[in-house]
Amino acid sequence: MSKNKPKEELEKLGKNILEQIKKQKNPEIVIPIRALSNINYDEKSKTIVMGEKVSSRYFFNIAHAKKFLQTLEIASIIKKELLETNKHEHLRGIFYIAKRTIPKTNINIVDDQVESDKIIEDLEVITGLSREQMHISANKMGSLVGNIIIEDSGDKIDCSKLGKGGYSIPSITDEIEFKKVNAKYVLYMEKASTFERLVEDKFWAKNNAILVTSQGQTTRGIRRLLQRLSEEHNLPIYVLCDGDIYGAYIYSVLKYGSIALSHASERLTIPSVKYVGITMDDVIKYDLKKQLIKLDEKDLARIKQVSKYDWFKNNKDWQRQFKMMKEFNGKVEIQSLSSKGVSFISEIYLPEKIKKKDFLE
Amino acid sequence: MSKNKPKEELEKLGKNILEQIKKQKNPEIVIPIRALSNINYDEKSKTIVMGEKVSSRYFFNIAHAKKFLQTLEIASIIKKELLETNKHEHLRGIFYIAKRTIPKTNINIVDDQVESDKIIEDLEVITGLSREQMHISANKMGSLVGNIIIEDSGDKIDCSKLGKGGYSIPSITDEIEFKKVNAKYVLYMEKASTFERLVEDKFWAKNNAILVTSQGQTTRGIRRLLQRLSEEHNLPIYVLCDGDIYGAYIYSVLKYGSIALSHASERLTIPSVKYVGITMDDVIKYDLKKQLIKLDEKDLARIKQVSKYDWFKNNKDWQRQFKMMKEFNGKVEIQSLSSKGVSFISEIYLPEKIKKKDFLE
Repeated sequence: MSKNKPKEELEKLGKNILEQIKKQKNPEIVIPIRALSNINYDEKSKTIVMGEKVSSRYFFNIAHAKKFLQTLEIASIIKKELLETNKHEHLRGIFYIAKRTIPKTNINIVDDQVESDKIIEDLEVITGLSREQMHISANKMGSLVGNIIIEDSGDKIDCSKLGKGGYSIPSITDEIEFKKVNAKYVLYMEKASTFERLVEDKFWAKNNAILVTSQGQTTRGIRRLLQRLSEEHNLPIYVLCDGDIYGAYIYSVLKYGSIALSHASERLTIPSVKYVGITMDDVIKYDLKKQLIKLDEKDLARIKQVSKYDWFKNNKDWQRQFKMMKEFNGKVEIQSLSSKGVSFISEIYLPEKIKKKDFLE
Repeated sequence: MSKNKPKEELEKLGKNILEQIKKQKNPEIVIPIRALSNINYDEKSKTIVMGEKVSSRYFFNIAHAKKFLQTLEIASIIKKELLETNKHEHLRGIFYIAKRTIPKTNINIVDDQVESDKIIEDLEVITGLSREQMHISANKMGSLVGNIIIEDSGDKIDCSKLGKGGYSIPSITDEIEFKKVNAKYVLYMEKASTFERLVEDKFWAKNNAILVTSQGQTTRGIRRLLQRLSEEHNLPIYVLCDGDIYGAYIYSVLKYGSIALSHASERLTIPSVKYVGITMDDVIKYDLKKQLIKLDEKDLARIKQVSKYDWFKNNKDWQRQFKMMKEFNGKVEIQSLSSKGVSFISEIYLPEKIKKKDFLE
């Protein structure tokens, strides 16, 4: 996409409103609907996608007028304050910029960040631009190491020479470039402690892997980074999570997308991603039954819910996992592998599973 | 401290027990008490320190026997699995290693991580070793950029050439070396979004500062890193937090230490640290009243509690801040400065405050 495309798309939105005003129409913005009623699991692309339903937002409509104003105001902030100055701002900052009082009234343009966040999502679907293309960031999280040279803001960063710490992943990863990639696969793990274990054991060098951790939730920045490594360098992406329903869901968001971000599926999902573990079969194979943590009500309810999702309901392998979770009445953490030895995960567990391609899909 | 000191200290603990057994004594471990009753604020050193009270743990005492066993077992795991192999393990991993059944019984050595965590803290006060010296890690968090070259595990890392991402701070920072430091001060901020703003504006290059963010709580690794930069390179450390009671507390932990980690004060606190903002005076000076967020019950209760802490109760400047928080009935976030312009924080707010040394202490 050209550097000017985002500005042009926002200008187009404004010009369109202007034309309607000139024609003395009631100004209207057409917005694809982001509700559950307009979200489908597409069997062919194997991703969660938005349907074709749209709604209209009118200026001369008491129920719409404020949101109409918010839409134009935030579009204007993005164009003037961010794109034209080539700066980035986070969601919370956009809220504070937009939170001002309409002159000669006591009405604020926005009173709560939820309002500006929703408008930003609206602008994504209205313009087809991603939030990142509009220079809006969210959480900065995660680390990366491996045989990869990244160019970030003019700096060439050799991620094989960053000690135990690694490269701190920025919130927006669309703008970094992969200058040289020499790896067989990418291993993404939810836990930073596992990352530190693998780094200390030089797992990435011995196995020629790129290691990525999120230190918590998988941010959009990390999803996009993994997708780009998959698409631009054809690297397999393996996911290492706790053996529980939340781990399964982290994996499914990477692979199929999420309901909340269905409109961004194309830029975020990685259909080829594979789940390396931990599985319920590992519990038997590696004798981890003693390390199981008992399921509580919340776990059970979530298993019930997730197992019914369109993208899981016909997947025999995953249904078998969910059944075993219930039979064992337990879940298992990655760190429980330490009970077999501090480096069991890097010397035995991962090399064996990856060599045998013992994945869940 | 010599490389072998940690091993020797743990051996000393074991040998001492052995000698007691040879003398047919009831084996005893003497442990400084880590309860509130043994914690004082030391006016002279201006840190929260442990008193001199100790307790004894006996093997032949039904109430002590299990903890006695846990103490020796975990000391043994640390020596054999970590120090002798030169590996590190996180708290959760230590729990899983220790969680095994005593042969011919159905009793586990530990059943819950709380137990192993407490024993590790006991071992810190028994041996005088830090958790980090025993190779036990906790959370990996945070990023760093600036004119500093770090040596981490043999890699020399120039933190002025790491793009927008920066160096991802490891959980244990005792082992990194500062090879070359060329900065006037360190700015530590709680929020990663502020870090990204300052990095994009090249604040660190323009002001010759090292920037550190935690992306959440200030981990022990970050506290130690800041302390080492202060002590080894005589750098001023400035703290940038939200203008609320939680920001004040983050600052006070850095400066005075915390109740939970009073035994580690010497290795973690930075008496010279200064608070750069946001203050309640900033709210007036920079016209941020509209950006105030109303205090809730929890905020008010926490203000009452924190303002009575020994290290705050005689501090007039901070008492004035707490009073203003109550008068305004509000708190203010760092990001609210965006309402003055995206780069107001890096172009006006911080340079002005730092130039005028407009700090709270």
